[in-house]
Formats: sequence, structure tokens, C-alpha cells
Amino acid sequence: MSKINMGNFFEDFSIGQKIIHPLPRTISEGDVSLYIAFTGSRFALHSSDVIANEMGYDKRPIDDVLNFHLTFGKSVQDISLNAIANLGYAEISFPNPVYTGNTVSMTSTVIGLKENSNGKSGVVYVHSIGVNQNGDEVLNFKRWVMVHKKDKETSTGMNEVPTFAESTPITEEINIPVVKCVDTDATGGKFFFEDYVKGERLNHPEGITIDDSDHTLATKLYQNNAKVHFNDHMMKSTPMGERLMYGGIVISIARAISFNGLQNAQWMYAINSGAHANPTYAGDTIYAYTEVLDTIDHKRDDIGLLRLRTIAVKNQKSSEIENPKGEDGKYLKNVVLDLDYTVIIPKKKTQK
Amino acid sequence: MSKINMGNFFEDFSIGQKIIHPLPRTISEGDVSLYIAFTGSRFALHSSDVIANEMGYDKRPIDDVLNFHLTFGKSVQDISLNAIANLGYAEISFPNPVYTGNTVSMTSTVIGLKENSNGKSGVVYVHSIGVNQNGDEVLNFKRWVMVHKKDKETSTGMNEVPTFAESTPITEEINIPVVKCVDTDATGGKFFFEDYVKGERLNHPEGITIDDSDHTLATKLYQNNAKVHFNDHMMKSTPMGERLMYGGIVISIARAISFNGLQNAQWMYAINSGAHANPTYAGDTIYAYTEVLDTIDHKRDDIGLLRLRTIAVKNQKSSEIENPKGEDGKYLKNVVLDLDYTVIIPKKKTQK
Amino acid sequence: MSKINMGNFFEDFSIGQKIIHPLPRTISEGDVSLYIAFTGSRFALHSSDVIANEMGYDKRPIDDVLNFHLTFGKSVQDISLNAIANLGYAEISFPNPVYTGNTVSMTSTVIGLKENSNGKSGVVYVHSIGVNQNGDEVLNFKRWVMVHKKDKETSTGMNEVPTFAESTPITEEINIPVVKCVDTDATGGKFFFEDYVKGERLNHPEGITIDDSDHTLATKLYQNNAKVHFNDHMMKSTPMGERLMYGGIVISIARAISFNGLQNAQWMYAINSGAHANPTYAGDTIYAYTEVLDTIDHKRDDIGLLRLRTIAVKNQKSSEIENPKGEDGKYLKNVVLDLDYTVIIPKKKTQK
Repeated sequence: MSKINMGNFFEDFSIGQKIIHPLPRTISEGDVSLYIAFTGSRFALHSSDVIANEMGYDKRPIDDVLNFHLTFGKSVQDISLNAIANLGYAEISFPNPVYTGNTVSMTSTVIGLKENSNGKSGVVYVHSIGVNQNGDEVLNFKRWVMVHKKDKETSTGMNEVPTFAESTPITEEINIPVVKCVDTDATGGKFFFEDYVKGERLNHPEGITIDDSDHTLATKLYQNNAKVHFNDHMMKSTPMGERLMYGGIVISIARAISFNGLQNAQWMYAINSGAHANPTYAGDTIYAYTEVLDTIDHKRDDIGLLRLRTIAVKNQKSSEIENPKGEDGKYLKNVVLDLDYTVIIPKKKTQK
Repeated sequence: MSKINMGNFFEDFSIGQKIIHPLPRTISEGDVSLYIAFTGSRFALHSSDVIANEMGYDKRPIDDVLNFHLTFGKSVQDISLNAIANLGYAEISFPNPVYTGNTVSMTSTVIGLKENSNGKSGVVYVHSIGVNQNGDEVLNFKRWVMVHKKDKETSTGMNEVPTFAESTPITEEINIPVVKCVDTDATGGKFFFEDYVKGERLNHPEGITIDDSDHTLATKLYQNNAKVHFNDHMMKSTPMGERLMYGGIVISIARAISFNGLQNAQWMYAINSGAHANPTYAGDTIYAYTEVLDTIDHKRDDIGLLRLRTIAVKNQKSSEIENPKGEDGKYLKNVVLDLDYTVIIPKKKTQK
Repeated sequence: MSKINMGNFFEDFSIGQKIIHPLPRTISEGDVSLYIAFTGSRFALHSSDVIANEMGYDKRPIDDVLNFHLTFGKSVQDISLNAIANLGYAEISFPNPVYTGNTVSMTSTVIGLKENSNGKSGVVYVHSIGVNQNGDEVLNFKRWVMVHKKDKETSTGMNEVPTFAESTPITEEINIPVVKCVDTDATGGKFFFEDYVKGERLNHPEGITIDDSDHTLATKLYQNNAKVHFNDHMMKSTPMGERLMYGGIVISIARAISFNGLQNAQWMYAINSGAHANPTYAGDTIYAYTEVLDTIDHKRDDIGLLRLRTIAVKNQKSSEIENPKGEDGKYLKNVVLDLDYTVIIPKKKTQK
């Protein structure tokens, strides 16, 4: 038996199978600084211990998207190393904050399997749960990927497809400290929950160009070992012709760009769904705009939630894109991300 | 009212106006390691806790230039986002050491406003003070930038120009511990205050090439969000044709290169003035030489100060440059930095 | 006397001379995160404090190869700044673990000098010992470099060549905690000492492309100031035509790639010898395969050792290389590293 782990194929998965992903990861100040260097992110809660203290935390929690990348990265070897495509995400939530010094790990359960009609591949649906060293959940999501079959001649007949909530449910209790005051001089934003209206659109003006070393350093930091992101020699013999950027990089850049207009929306509560509409390569400049899909009140009187749709665009100002999809219902070729997510934002009464 | 912050224009400023810059920043070991990775800096005080302890510190303070970048970065959004040019700096000082774990923030006061005769722009003069979480000053400087006017038809008539000291005044008390011993085996340099003479020139032999990811990662780490440094798509439609490097990167590289010849000058006491003589782009190799403008004795008998002028040159050995300016009084096209600054260096009696 | 340190030439060395290398270095979480970003390394012991605790450590020790780079970097200024070639290494060992917060420094003793017959250069042999802040040895090695002579007309007649052990001796006591249990779900590998056989070959499938900023950031982080790695302007006028990658980068990438097949071999015990067979440049993709040269039992019943030979190849899959040398006994042009080293790997009884 070979000692080389070539990842799993469609037939290697079974419904109910539980996979403990290797490589628990202790998160450090080094990861946090690198994340700022990768994205230029400016959300105050993740930038300053002083602000974090004022907002009820012992020290600044790490950015939720960084938590996602570091925890998610663990699952690539087992789930998507042989993926033809990452098809979708659903019901992503961030149940507890993560701090430097925490060690995160992840387990996935197979919740669906559907062989494709061509017999060559199939879709694997997993429910993945990330926990810290105390077993507290820090990430919870479902995703589905298309993976190759080993034996293309023999049908498995698998056809179990789970259903997903249209959006991540919002819980009664939200696990962030009571927001007593928001110092708008420190956060850089004067707008609160009540200021946003459904249908509103924010054209974030910034554009950030991503280069080779930027995206490969980030993806290696996340210990995400999908070959398409690292191996230029291999990619040169594919139709892409070069390394494909890890889609998570675009999510991070889009979130960082969305700061301008959403400065006080410092918590990513959930990602309801996401599509990497087109590939991104080194040298591309990312722009973004955000639509407010919904304003969601909560029984807590200090905070509310905004359901947002952020569209990231490459090499074109986001203000030039009216609709990310063309008349044919397909994404425009410069649109690279369509992210439906929910953020927490304090109410006006917390303004200091 | 738009939620998007487009930065301030000339008319948005008024004399005496105080601007609290958002984004207090907790400085971490990650920032310190990244700074070494960006510059290759080798000053022993910032490299080793053991050396720092021997020199009277509880732990190693961060490099003064890193402090400058992290603190200064906060002011870009409010002061220079719409800058046509960063015109100058004066009276920069570093009143107290900064350590990892400290949280720095900055406030600026408008001290001058002068509309340009063309009516399209004006010069804004600010006095900026950076403090740590206890309110101790860690950075103090004046700078002036040329910014666009919103209304080019209506003259403001503003013409208040402050005056600046020719060099940052040297205070009676200097806020560094008494230097009891300098271990030259550890610092890598055998030369002390008394060894340097006015007029002396040091041709530092090293050259360091800066690439795209190097400079953009650094500038994002500093949360300096000036678009010209990040947005290659936008810059392609400007005469520059590509991203302009943040001038602070060149200051850092020049300072790191100056190590060879100034190994024991581990404290940046002040920057008296600085000019970014020409733009720097990815792929440029930076060289530097230093002239000793003055040797300045101090009442403390353990240390003295050197007023230095470091000239950074791109793509040409620094030894080939006799005078950074040509006969026409303009900087030679390869000269990229003319920095007049003052360093602290121990006296011979401290030699171990 | 010039204040500029131009490094040492052949005549500057004498047998028995002891050189204390400057720049003690405190190692931080920032260095650790950067190392993961540079390499994508996934060895669990260096990734997770929880795993490290289970394996008897107070916290995760740093990767042995990172220790090598950070400690070795100190010696470049004194030993190899004027090196024509780094000829070889022998008897490298890692006597004690290194943790973040430790400060490492290094001292070298000249153990051999041999003038070349052309009179223009000579070979300098040194024995270098790195210690932590308590004086505990953390790195011990011998290396030899070819350096220029200052005076090419006058022969020194030096011809003292030391002998080296064919491999680093294995000590009675091995300074790692008793391995009580290895959680293979966490390490990602199911194979233990008893599973490996002499002559076995592992074709690691991964390939990692290295870019300009990747390798220069790493080499600057290690404060290795050899000009060939940084100065593109200078290198353009050499036959290489561009910056040469620090050979240590390739060692790190090859070690990270070897994870797939050697997941539980988390300790680098020794490097017996190493050759940088061909130069590596930005844009090259590194692949690697490993041969098991020997399986070495030890009196400790929890661990054994594997003597390995890892061959790194550029821009070609490692499985395509049968023998790294051609019929003429020379390395194939795509082979970039031939590393003979010894790792520690737990025995089956530790499996949890």
C-alpha cells in the first residue's frame, strides 16, 4: 500500500461517514498580521485590543474570514484534493469567536452523494464543523464538490441529495458580548443598523491588485494544499495556463474593500451562499459593491443584522456593473464573486 | 448622504481643526517579523530581547521606522487620500519607544492652508501626534500635502503657511535607557559616536530589489490605503502606467542598508526633512549612501547624536553618485530619496 | 579605516580562529507563521500546541529547518559574503528544540584552510555552533565555502583539510520527550518506523512554484545578507542574469513536500550532507522524491530513525527522475537538491 495520500475519490465516500481532518492549527499573532498584509483589512475590532476591550472582549478576536480560511484549509486534503469544481456552500456560521492562542480543528460528515449521469464523477456533500481546543464550535458549514470517480465503468447508483436552508438560520442567542459603546472616531464609520435600508447599494471605491506571491503565501499559510493554486508547472499544461487563485482570497479582499461603507459591521455572522463566478489570476485587480438584501432586527437591543450581497469584479470598477448577470442569466465575465452573507452591526444607541 | 468615505478635499479642512484618525492598531510580533522580511533589517536592538535587556529595555522595542509606518498609515484616509502629492515632512520625532502589545493611534491638527494660484488645489499643513494606549507620545510630526479642491470655481482665499524648524529640536532629556554596555560582537559594529566626523561619507555596498508583492504587502500591513500603491488597474490609465511604491518603503530599505557602517546607531531620534526625489516601482533595486551632516554632543555622557543625510538611488550603485542633484539643482533621475535625520549612537565608553 | 564591512577574504581566516557572529535573534510567532506561508508546511508538531502538548512539549517547537535558517543566517556576513560557492555541509545536528521567545546566536571556529592551486581563492572550513539564550546548543554543523583571496599574487601555502564523518553520529540520548501517543487523525499519517524499509522510494506528488517575493522575503527574514539573493540590478550583469535563490529555500520546500508520505517523521535529527545540484530561480516549480537510505533502531523503544535522501527537481515531476545523476556522474540539469538527512519517527506502539 502506497504511503502517498492521493486524496479521496467519489467511491471513497459513504453517507454518514465521519472524517477527522488532520492538522489542528494554533492561531498566532503572525497569522493575524499576515492577514492584514494580505488584505489591508481595517475593521477596528480586529485591529486593536483597546477597541476590543471597549466592546466587551478580553482581546481582539481574529477576523471571521481568517478563521474560515485557517479552519477550512484542513479539509482540502480529504474532501477536495481531487475536486473538479467547488460547487457551493451553504449555512456557514461562526458560532464563537476565535483568539490568537486558540487551536482549531475540523471534522466533516458526508451528508449526500450523487453520481453524475456521465459516470465519470459525482458530487459529495459534507457538513463540516470546526472547533477550538475546548471543543467549542467556531465554524459550521455545508459544502458540495464534484470529484472524480476511480472506476468510471461501474455505476454506484448513489443519488442522495440533501436540502439546504436558503440562508443560515439566525439564532435566538448571538454569541458576542453586549455592545455598550461604539467609538466612531476609532471605527472610522458613522453608520449603524438603522441607517441601512433594504435595496441600498454601496459602490466601494477601492481596487486591490493581487500578485503571485500574495495569493500563494496566503493559501500556503492556510495549509490549503489544492494543487491548482501552487503548481505553475502543472497549470501551464491546462487550459487555464497558470495558477488559479484560491477563491477564499477574493472573499477576503472583497470583505476588506467593503469596509468603506460598512465600517461598523465588524462581525461576519453567516455566509448564506457563495459562488465563484469566474476564475481569478495573479495580476487581477479586485473591486466590489454591496447590496443590502435585508435588514434583520433581533431581540437584542444593541445589535441588528444586515443580509448583504457583495459582488466582486475584476479589472473593472464595481460602479460600472449594474447587474452581475447578463440577459442570458450567466455571470458577466469580469464578475468573480457573488457572496450572500449576514453581518452584525450595532444600533444607534451604542454610538459613543 | 453617501455612506462611502471619499476622503477630504481642500475645502473640508479648516485651521485649528482636529482630526481623530480611526483604526487604533495593536502592534504584534507578526508585524515585527514582517518588517524584517520586508527590509532585511539587522539592527541588534530590534532583533534580540537579550541585547535589548543588556541595553536597559524590558524587551526589544520595535524599529522606529516601523512605528512611523504603522502610526502614519492611519492618517491617509483623512489627510492624503485625495493628495496630488506628498510635499514634505518636518520635525518628525519619536518621543517614546513602542513595544509589541502596544496600541497606537493618531490625531492631527490642521496648522496651515494655502490655496494654489490655479484655484484647483491647495496645500494642507497638519501637525500629527501618535500615542500609545496610555497616551504617551510615540510619534510627532508635521507634514504638508497638496489636495484637490471640490469647487474649482470659487476661491477660498486661504493663505496661512506655518513655519518649521530647520531640524527637529533635540531635547534635554532623551527617553532611552542609560546605555551601560554595547556588545560589539552582537551588534556587528565597532564604531561609536566619537568615530564619526562631520562630512564623512559612507557608501553602503548592499542593493535590495523590491518586487510587487513586497511593497504591497508592506503597505497593506500599515493599513495605508492610498490607491496609487494598490490599484494596478487604475494606475494603468495614468502616466505612471503602474503602481507607485509607498515612499515609506524606500525609507525603510535605505535605513536597513545603512546598517553597514552605522551598526550601533540603533535609534532613529528624528527625521528633520525628507524628499521623495523620484518615484520607485516594483523591480527597482535600491542602493544608498550616507553623509554625516553633523555630530551632536549631548549632556548625557553615554550617547551622542549624528545628523545624517541618506541618499537612496535606484538601479545604480550609490558610490557612483557624487551629488544627488545635477547642475540645474534638480535631483538626478535615479535618486529616489533624500532623507535628513538624526540618530542616537553610544559613546566609546559603553563598549563592552 | 573604512567603517564599511566588506566581509572576510581567504587571508582573513586562520586555523583555530573563533568568530562570534553578530545579531542574536529572538524567534517569534511571526517567524513561525511566515515559515508556514513560505512553505505550506503541514507537520502537526509545529502546527498545533495541542499536539505538541500530547507529545510531551510545553508548546510547539519551531520547525528544525526554520531554526537552521534563522541561526545560519547570522554567519553569512563573516563567512560567506565573498563566497564564490557554498561547497558543502557535514554533521549538521539539532541538539535541542527551539521555541518562540528563544534568542539564538552563533559562533564559528575555523577548522581548515586550503588555498586553491590557481592562487585566486581558497576553501575555508568552519565548525559553527548555535545556542539559545541559556547557552544550550540548538544547531551544530560544519561547512566549507570557496572565498576570494585579497592578494592573488602571494601564496599562503595553506593546506589543512579536516575530515568529516560520513553521516552525523547518532547519540545515545536523543533530546526529545518520550513519545507516549501519536494521534494519526491529527498528524495525517498512518505510517510508523516499522512501516518503512531500506530502499523504499516515495514520489511526493506535490509541486510548489516559488516567486520573487516568496524567496526574497524569506531570505531577508533569516537576515541572510548574501547579495546574490537580493540584488537583481547586480545580478543582471552576471552570467546568471537574475537573482539566485537561497539554497535553503529549496531545502524547506522539499521538506514541506515530503510531508506526503512522511507525516509522522516530524523531527529533523541531522543533515548528513547536502548538495545544491543546480541553481533555482524565481518562477521555478519544485518537486521532490525521497529514498529511504536506512532504517536505524535506537535504544529508546518509542522512536526510531530513518536516514533519507530527498531529491528536489525543478519544473519536472519527481516521478520522472530515476537517478538524479546522468551516466557522466553529473547531476541532471533539473535536479536542484540532493539532501542526505536523518529524521526521527515514532514506533507503532505509540499509535493512538
